Amino acid sequence: MTVNMKISINKKILAKNEEFALQNKAFFAEKGILCINMISSPGSGKTTILSRTAENLKDKLRLGVIEGDIQTDTDAAKIRAMGIDAVQIETKGSCHLSAEQVGKALSQMKSAELDIVFVENVGNLVCPSSFDLGEQTRVVVLSVPEGDDKPIKYPGTFAKADILLINKIDLANYVNFKLERVIGDVRVLNPDVTIFEISATTGEGMQAWYDWLLAQRKQQ
Amino acid sequence: MTVNMKISINKKILAKNEEFALQNKAFFAEKGILCINMISSPGSGKTTILSRTAENLKDKLRLGVIEGDIQTDTDAAKIRAMGIDAVQIETKGSCHLSAEQVGKALSQMKSAELDIVFVENVGNLVCPSSFDLGEQTRVVVLSVPEGDDKPIKYPGTFAKADILLINKIDLANYVNFKLERVIGDVRVLNPDVTIFEISATTGEGMQAWYDWLLAQRKQQ
Repeated sequence: MTVNMKISINKKILAKNEEFALQNKAFFAEKGILCINMISSPGSGKTTILSRTAENLKDKLRLGVIEGDIQTDTDAAKIRAMGIDAVQIETKGSCHLSAEQVGKALSQMKSAELDIVFVENVGNLVCPSSFDLGEQTRVVVLSVPEGDDKPIKYPGTFAKADILLINKIDLANYVNFKLERVIGDVRVLNPDVTIFEISATTGEGMQAWYDWLLAQRKQQ
Repeated sequence: MTVNMKISINKKILAKNEEFALQNKAFFAEKGILCINMISSPGSGKTTILSRTAENLKDKLRLGVIEGDIQTDTDAAKIRAMGIDAVQIETKGSCHLSAEQVGKALSQMKSAELDIVFVENVGNLVCPSSFDLGEQTRVVVLSVPEGDDKPIKYPGTFAKADILLINKIDLANYVNFKLERVIGDVRVLNPDVTIFEISATTGEGMQAWYDWLLAQRKQQ
């Protein structure tokens, strides 16, 4: 297979995805739903961030969660146990969610009654960034133990973030991680990104993230 | 594009990769080189493991390193600074190395004079596991802060490992990580995997890994 053939196939897959993304976007606009696409490496803490956020905001906002994983539905089960509407998508090997999968998941939720739908993408710093799901807001999570070189190594993902959550700041004393380097490198790639420093485990810094979510909701 | 078309294209890409993998495999066999393909999430510590391993073994073994990254050549530069032959492959967006890229990198090294070639794959727990590079040994690195649920969430990658390095065990006291759960889950997927618990930062547990490398080399 030539490189040109591969590029043309990739373009077709992306164009097909874009059609479904536009459908999702129209649905969110019509229903007044804020959709947030969460992207990160495996193990950066997305599920813990979502659990803690849901726990804190579930009486103030109507939340829904779409969980993407290669396999298992443990993440959705965790969220459902808190009384939150959650659907699991098992990608069975694919390294990202597609807009079509998200559209199907939305049809399985009481989505018309929600304020915010969080989509937890497959743990991956590469593939998900090319696939628009129709979301209004893209959140990238970087956890401190992953290292401060990730923005320059995975620039595509960090360049497209609306929000950067720097998670596990409670571990900053135990690893070599220069916060100012991360912030500097990300600002070069993406001057407009909003950055929150948090620990979803200890709760440190989470209030600013909750306030941001509440403020966004009011703007809808 | 239909699902069947997509599957048939993927099969062609994998078949093409397999041809180059067989060429690499033949090259390694002919030259008596042990090739080790290292796979993990971003930030699990592959480069630190390689740096420390190179530092400890460079007088006993002739080592070479092929570094795969989406972008930047900082990892290869780190390794070269230690006097080790290192080539960087920038994949420019692709989430894994291919056997063809590794073959080209080998031609840029004094590979015929090496005992071990380490290939540090792109940080990703999904894509690299489908692409044979012609290596004899596949090492998967899981770092403690990523969480103990990774083997069940990314079973394909853990099922194909010859060696599992559980890294950053110095952080085990600061995070919720059940080592026995990881070992149990991995053994179900992969009963024959060899597991080392290490900290590339503190050096804890590294000697067993060095001994394993030295022993493998003698068997070549």
